[in-house]
Amino acid sequence: MSSGEDDLIARYFKPLATDPGARGLVDDAAVLAASGSDLVLTTDAIVEGVHYLSDDPPAAIARKALRVNLSDLAAKGATPAGFLLTLALRNADESFLAPFVEALGRDAAAYGCPLLGGDTVSTPGPMMISVTAFGRVPPGAMVRRDALQPGDRIVVSGTIGDAALGLDLLQGRATAANEHDHAFLINRYREPQPRSALAQAVRDHARAAMDISDGLAGDLAKMCAASGVTATLQADAVPVSSAARTLISSGAAALQRILSGGDDYELLCGIAAEQLESFLAAAQRSAVPVAVIGTAAEGTAAPRWLSASGCEVSLTALSYSHF
Amino acid sequence: MSSGEDDLIARYFKPLATDPGARGLVDDAAVLAASGSDLVLTTDAIVEGVHYLSDDPPAAIARKALRVNLSDLAAKGATPAGFLLTLALRNADESFLAPFVEALGRDAAAYGCPLLGGDTVSTPGPMMISVTAFGRVPPGAMVRRDALQPGDRIVVSGTIGDAALGLDLLQGRATAANEHDHAFLINRYREPQPRSALAQAVRDHARAAMDISDGLAGDLAKMCAASGVTATLQADAVPVSSAARTLISSGAAALQRILSGGDDYELLCGIAAEQLESFLAAAQRSAVPVAVIGTAAEGTAAPRWLSASGCEVSLTALSYSHF
Repeated sequence: MSSGEDDLIARYFKPLATDPGARGLVDDAAVLAASGSDLVLTTDAIVEGVHYLSDDPPAAIARKALRVNLSDLAAKGATPAGFLLTLALRNADESFLAPFVEALGRDAAAYGCPLLGGDTVSTPGPMMISVTAFGRVPPGAMVRRDALQPGDRIVVSGTIGDAALGLDLLQGRATAANEHDHAFLINRYREPQPRSALAQAVRDHARAAMDISDGLAGDLAKMCAASGVTATLQADAVPVSSAARTLISSGAAALQRILSGGDDYELLCGIAAEQLESFLAAAQRSAVPVAVIGTAAEGTAAPRWLSASGCEVSLTALSYSHF
Repeated sequence: MSSGEDDLIARYFKPLATDPGARGLVDDAAVLAASGSDLVLTTDAIVEGVHYLSDDPPAAIARKALRVNLSDLAAKGATPAGFLLTLALRNADESFLAPFVEALGRDAAAYGCPLLGGDTVSTPGPMMISVTAFGRVPPGAMVRRDALQPGDRIVVSGTIGDAALGLDLLQGRATAANEHDHAFLINRYREPQPRSALAQAVRDHARAAMDISDGLAGDLAKMCAASGVTATLQADAVPVSSAARTLISSGAAALQRILSGGDDYELLCGIAAEQLESFLAAAQRSAVPVAVIGTAAEGTAAPRWLSASGCEVSLTALSYSHF
């Protein structure tokens, strides 16, 4: 009596639907129980050949699909509550689905973000994976992008630019100095590390926050524009991995690529000066490295990037755009 | 400073983001305020060439994308709260987007379901529109699919099979008796009418419910299987439009196509015998026609369909499957 679609769901996805709200995936809808929390909603889709490469490992694709959304939840200061998955597939290929679902299940458990439901459709075109993730915050506590104020310190997590360089390596536009750097940078492209551990610190201490998905320079410009402020940044304060630094030193990568390349999935925060110490202490407790890279200021000009010598750095392409 | 993607959002989608929780679409996330309600979550995607035809009018595609989700909310007894939209586009085509967004905005207003956020990505393949819709119900009140009990009366809304016949007309597999029937059936395929007006009656009086998207016979079989019961149905009690009846009478359409064709987006409910009168009265007040078509019974056999003469109707293909 069951269709191929139902078999697919029963076989691959039902084991992941551990939350009672998922209703064992037998229903057309899931339920999130009232809890007195605001619900933060975010959705990001990844398309084969656009956001990931056709020969990326299925497990890495699964992790990217979920983690780009977990990254948004962390930036909003939210605790993960669950996700919906929409898969557009050319066919139900076991060799793809088995490792894809296994990795997704591991991540769902690791981040406390269970599968609640979804939709599976066929497409003659490229595969597409769309995730809608839900997080909880106390009422009114979602951290906004458009709340940066003059004098706020600009802070980023982790290291910037690795993913863009990883994509360059995969597409033959650059060569890493050694095998270790090669693997590190490619992994940074394929498998974002959402800064969920920093969500509480962001909620407690950040005035504004967003995740960096389209390039640091462009995303910072968006935050400034949305907030009606400008900012001055020290380009050499931007944290860079040793693998990326080696590529820059050798001339194989440009600073512009670091600042403007996409797929970082690090957090960009504006912290009021009087909250900075508490934020840095909370970040240290969460074991996520963070770095102060500049300061917001009154004005509506584009943010200024300064080199170590105080000269303005010119960035021609600020971020990735689909259209 | 803004990208093409941001322009697209500002131009087309920001006017639809009227709810404060949408945060004017400047953020990567939306927020649904705590309200003491359970939140019902549902997601359905439609793919060009699979769920709609490339030359379907953009306004009809917009309505279908949202309404198939509103139909799920109605079946769960939920009041719409908002939706997220993920659009995978080959390009940002004004002649598509302008009428698409206008129709989407009208429906969002008409059904009280505002745009809260979304994602826009490029794809080299067919267009895909994925909607995640949110509804509210009192705690614990979501109406389930798997709660049908022996003795419950089986009720459907509206008329069944029109959409499948409309698709047959569009694809040249059938010819309508006249222009009016032709337009009616095609409209039933292109523009589902979610039974939102019936949601309260479903919540108050139905034991089990789901919307009919993959064909009445198959969806009923799913409800029975999920609930661990069987059912006996009177095929001639299934409500059929006069346009569909004309096609059947002339031999141009088969009963099997009516019972097994997809895209009805009517509601299928199991109503305890003692609730039937109250449900029918509430349905009448909501001005949605409903019809009793059978009764659930103990057992795990496939549901039986009987003709007017009491003979068993054999249905070979119960429902549409993607894989």
